[in-house]
Amino acid sequence: MIAPSLFELACRRRPVARTPVWFMRQAGRYLPEYRAVRRRRSLLQICKQPDLAAEVTLQPVDRLGVDAAIIFADLLLPAEPMGLRLEFVAGEGPLIRNPVRSRSDVEALATNHAADLGYVGEAIRLVRRRLDRRIPVIGFVGAPFTFASYIIEGGASRHFVRTKRMMYGEPALWNRLLGKLLKVLAPYAASQVRAGAAAIQVFDSWAGALSPGDYQRYVLPHSRDLIRRIGRAGVPVIHFSTGVGGYYAMLDQAGADVLSLDWRVELDKAWEAIGHRSAVQGNLDPAALFAPLPELRRQVVDILRRAGGRPGHIFNLGHGILPETPVENVKAVVEMVREFSTR
Amino acid sequence: MIAPSLFELACRRRPVARTPVWFMRQAGRYLPEYRAVRRRRSLLQICKQPDLAAEVTLQPVDRLGVDAAIIFADLLLPAEPMGLRLEFVAGEGPLIRNPVRSRSDVEALATNHAADLGYVGEAIRLVRRRLDRRIPVIGFVGAPFTFASYIIEGGASRHFVRTKRMMYGEPALWNRLLGKLLKVLAPYAASQVRAGAAAIQVFDSWAGALSPGDYQRYVLPHSRDLIRRIGRAGVPVIHFSTGVGGYYAMLDQAGADVLSLDWRVELDKAWEAIGHRSAVQGNLDPAALFAPLPELRRQVVDILRRAGGRPGHIFNLGHGILPETPVENVKAVVEMVREFSTR
Repeated sequence: MIAPSLFELACRRRPVARTPVWFMRQAGRYLPEYRAVRRRRSLLQICKQPDLAAEVTLQPVDRLGVDAAIIFADLLLPAEPMGLRLEFVAGEGPLIRNPVRSRSDVEALATNHAADLGYVGEAIRLVRRRLDRRIPVIGFVGAPFTFASYIIEGGASRHFVRTKRMMYGEPALWNRLLGKLLKVLAPYAASQVRAGAAAIQVFDSWAGALSPGDYQRYVLPHSRDLIRRIGRAGVPVIHFSTGVGGYYAMLDQAGADVLSLDWRVELDKAWEAIGHRSAVQGNLDPAALFAPLPELRRQVVDILRRAGGRPGHIFNLGHGILPETPVENVKAVVEMVREFSTR
Repeated sequence: MIAPSLFELACRRRPVARTPVWFMRQAGRYLPEYRAVRRRRSLLQICKQPDLAAEVTLQPVDRLGVDAAIIFADLLLPAEPMGLRLEFVAGEGPLIRNPVRSRSDVEALATNHAADLGYVGEAIRLVRRRLDRRIPVIGFVGAPFTFASYIIEGGASRHFVRTKRMMYGEPALWNRLLGKLLKVLAPYAASQVRAGAAAIQVFDSWAGALSPGDYQRYVLPHSRDLIRRIGRAGVPVIHFSTGVGGYYAMLDQAGADVLSLDWRVELDKAWEAIGHRSAVQGNLDPAALFAPLPELRRQVVDILRRAGGRPGHIFNLGHGILPETPVENVKAVVEMVREFSTR
């Protein structure tokens, strides 16, 4: 029997000796060793080659001293076995060449090829072996709304008009689509847990495009279904979103163990707004990593002060590390969290 | 003595017979008559030719039956007399060819050529004359943060890294820059009031990029200064932003008469969060204008129900009308607001 990690204890709101810390996109373009790998391989090539994905996942671990690794993958990987043509175009992000616009597009989506994503599980196994249980590995999946909006819009979007048009205009088709996504995303998350993921983060990156009323009516039931099914696999679920500062309490109804807060809220007030029913993760502005150290320290300490030593805080950014971020500042934040949160 | 309009009464939280309604970007690309003008003229040409700006301002007035006109202009127009080279590039929005990055860039900004913006006042005078006092005209300016971020980044931005780097790393320079902007924006707003604007909307479109702490420390004092100076001109000030659902109460401290709410909050809860100290404007999702009429009506009625007939609600979107929006749905919203808010 191995003692649970700081990270897992915090997910379960158990007392810890100090606040665990990891960063979204801690493996990524800001790291020279990651850029070196990317010069030879595309993003999809790295994801699909478990030894490379494992290598990239582990790059930041020792360099930064974080308390969890997150598997290197992309939330749209499950689009491929569903029959969608996924590409990554420099500067534009993910593109779906055959987006889902009609009833027949929805019906054509395959939901029985999740095994094709076995390379992600394999990468998780490799990471776990190489970490030798020093720190846990986090797996992740896209949330139904964010996944749906990518495959409807055909890529990133600013106004989500096609997505909302389906949601408002064809609610039965919308529900059918999100139901099909659940059939892929839930087993995919479970496969990551079987491979050794100690937690699953559900990325609802675009939830902030929605009004609270639309979230509740069109999205919450699907997110709740997914989170419930992942929870049954026995690991804590982290629910990530941005731009929903006005309705975290509604997101909390989706039932995750941990709510990931962005920097547009004060951590103490947001935690209070959800009645401290879940753990919270966050919530430094990724741009604060460009600040001089005294200002950066002030912001880190402010977040820890707002968390107030209450069990159930995981230090993180409010969103992913930005490409030009100075590595030494990321490392400095880990040290600050260790220094100022030790109890 | 002319009786104040529904719009002006609502700005002052006085009782009205029905809820006034207007739309951000009610003159714009979704209107065929606007696109017809744009085929012959650039955006800047329209802004700088008062008869054209007036024509475009008035296009939606009779077609939609709105309760206020908003002058057709761009919030970056004051950049030109400050010595910045402003362009609009199709698909990219505004670009500043010589962005403000250093101390010498800040020092080089001129603050004494606001008179060069006289064409905006002239357009307001023309609009007022043609409206013959049927409805009021709203003027507008950019808020210091949003204006600064445009001229530092050189255009729209996703992560505002250069802006925040100056804010965090060179706070004295940041304050110097925002102080210089105040010297241009406040007289520019006052000139619009002299020309007949019945209210000024201050657009802090990018405020939602900031944490509440950064907003309070680096932005709030400057916004408060600007709003106080506009208020002295004797008209109500509307404070617009998006993405700040977690801290409207802090924005409210900037002292505007009306807080413009985006759709990421429930209007009743946000109004309560600011203790009903200001009027509120909003807050339909612009994408809801793509919904079938029954769904659109449900959302309009929900907003009116949340406003609850309390004096001080102006119906609007949470942000501007989107380019492909069906004109008939915009018109339908005006009719719904009239029907369901009449007291």
